[in-house]
Amino acid sequence: MTGILYIIGLGPGAPELVTPAVTEALATVDAVLGYFPYVARVPERPGLARHASDNGDEIARARQGLHWAAEGRRVALVSGGDAGVFGMAAAAFEVVAAEPALAGLDIRVLPGISAMFAAAARVGAPLGHDFCAISLSDNLKPWAVIARRLAAAAEAGFVIALYNPISRARPWQLDAAFDLLRPLLPAATPVVFARAVTRPDETIAIAPLETAQGTMADMRTLVIIGTAETRQIPRPDGTAFVYAPRRMA
Amino acid sequence: MTGILYIIGLGPGAPELVTPAVTEALATVDAVLGYFPYVARVPERPGLARHASDNGDEIARARQGLHWAAEGRRVALVSGGDAGVFGMAAAAFEVVAAEPALAGLDIRVLPGISAMFAAAARVGAPLGHDFCAISLSDNLKPWAVIARRLAAAAEAGFVIALYNPISRARPWQLDAAFDLLRPLLPAATPVVFARAVTRPDETIAIAPLETAQGTMADMRTLVIIGTAETRQIPRPDGTAFVYAPRRMA
Repeated sequence: MTGILYIIGLGPGAPELVTPAVTEALATVDAVLGYFPYVARVPERPGLARHASDNGDEIARARQGLHWAAEGRRVALVSGGDAGVFGMAAAAFEVVAAEPALAGLDIRVLPGISAMFAAAARVGAPLGHDFCAISLSDNLKPWAVIARRLAAAAEAGFVIALYNPISRARPWQLDAAFDLLRPLLPAATPVVFARAVTRPDETIAIAPLETAQGTMADMRTLVIIGTAETRQIPRPDGTAFVYAPRRMA
Repeated sequence: MTGILYIIGLGPGAPELVTPAVTEALATVDAVLGYFPYVARVPERPGLARHASDNGDEIARARQGLHWAAEGRRVALVSGGDAGVFGMAAAAFEVVAAEPALAGLDIRVLPGISAMFAAAARVGAPLGHDFCAISLSDNLKPWAVIARRLAAAAEAGFVIALYNPISRARPWQLDAAFDLLRPLLPAATPVVFARAVTRPDETIAIAPLETAQGTMADMRTLVIIGTAETRQIPRPDGTAFVYAPRRMA
């Protein structure tokens, strides 16, 4: 039997946002590896070994999956959202780069609906013009690089989607990001806090940059920061649509 | 009957990348509107009116869909990829902003697999660290803004995904972008040309920035430009994986 490694994006959470390509691949594998909450989303069935591990184990997890595939097993490495966006895909290719014998393996990346797109869809079209995605985690890169990217993005007019905005071990970075951005963007710039998007406990909040605070987010929140162009449309139910116009003056 | 407007991302082309949420919504609408090739992807059935129009008609198309929904019809506005990424979603909310009576309508944006994520999945994990998406079309914003964003992104270390890289009416912009980026990035920086990704006529090419040319792309190509961090892994079949390492020195 020929081994295969699928690197899979499970989407933001709702089952109806899992692509058929992913559902079909998951039906054929004999092992699935990933972070606890993502592995928990893959239904149990006879013949499927589920190996959940904690965050921070990405390289060890990827290596295990690749080695099993090299031994002829059919393996899925799963991420939430899209595995290529701050997920398992880059970790897997870092392992392949370090062990070139793995480069001939059948490795297939199956894209997913990212948290960023699901969050945007919930409020309107806040990513409607040029945008960027930045991970606020300084575990893998220096804070100075993150700060520079935030400033460059705001100054050049990109909408900013922030991944990994806050955690117990990284409590101050999101407030530092807002403080850094406040002098660069209008006070009324909409900031979207999309927590657990498409999950049963989803919450969506919108605040002006002027009063946006780190406490409005947690580990499961995707934060979208608009530009001077970003507009809000009040709705009769008290909520608002947020969108970035396509046309620029 | 209560009207509804779905704003739908059909994904990059492969049917197995259309989400179940989209498939279910399309089964319930009585009208679908969009650019010719996207409407053609929605199967014909009795009771479904398909209204295809050309590029450039986005506002008129969005207005038509919104007005039909306001009259009680069930309507889908369809885009390729994700409708929130240089697709129909922003156009629709521009119309709502201009006609506030529409803000109470039931409008649901259903996210899709973007061309950018599908292209990335095909070659590895080129969006593995911070990245941005830029439309190279200067129909809706001045070229000076695009040039400034390209430079800011490269200087700050973002991977760059280019939408709308070239067309008959915009023949020079992609070469201008490469010329602008060459002094800012290493000569060997990988550039991925992913054409018609996941379609039967898909082609994938990788060139170093040093020799990348506009003629390597067409209207259906998504271009990904790496950073100084981006790595390639040669494969036994002569192709290569491209990835952006998560960790930065």
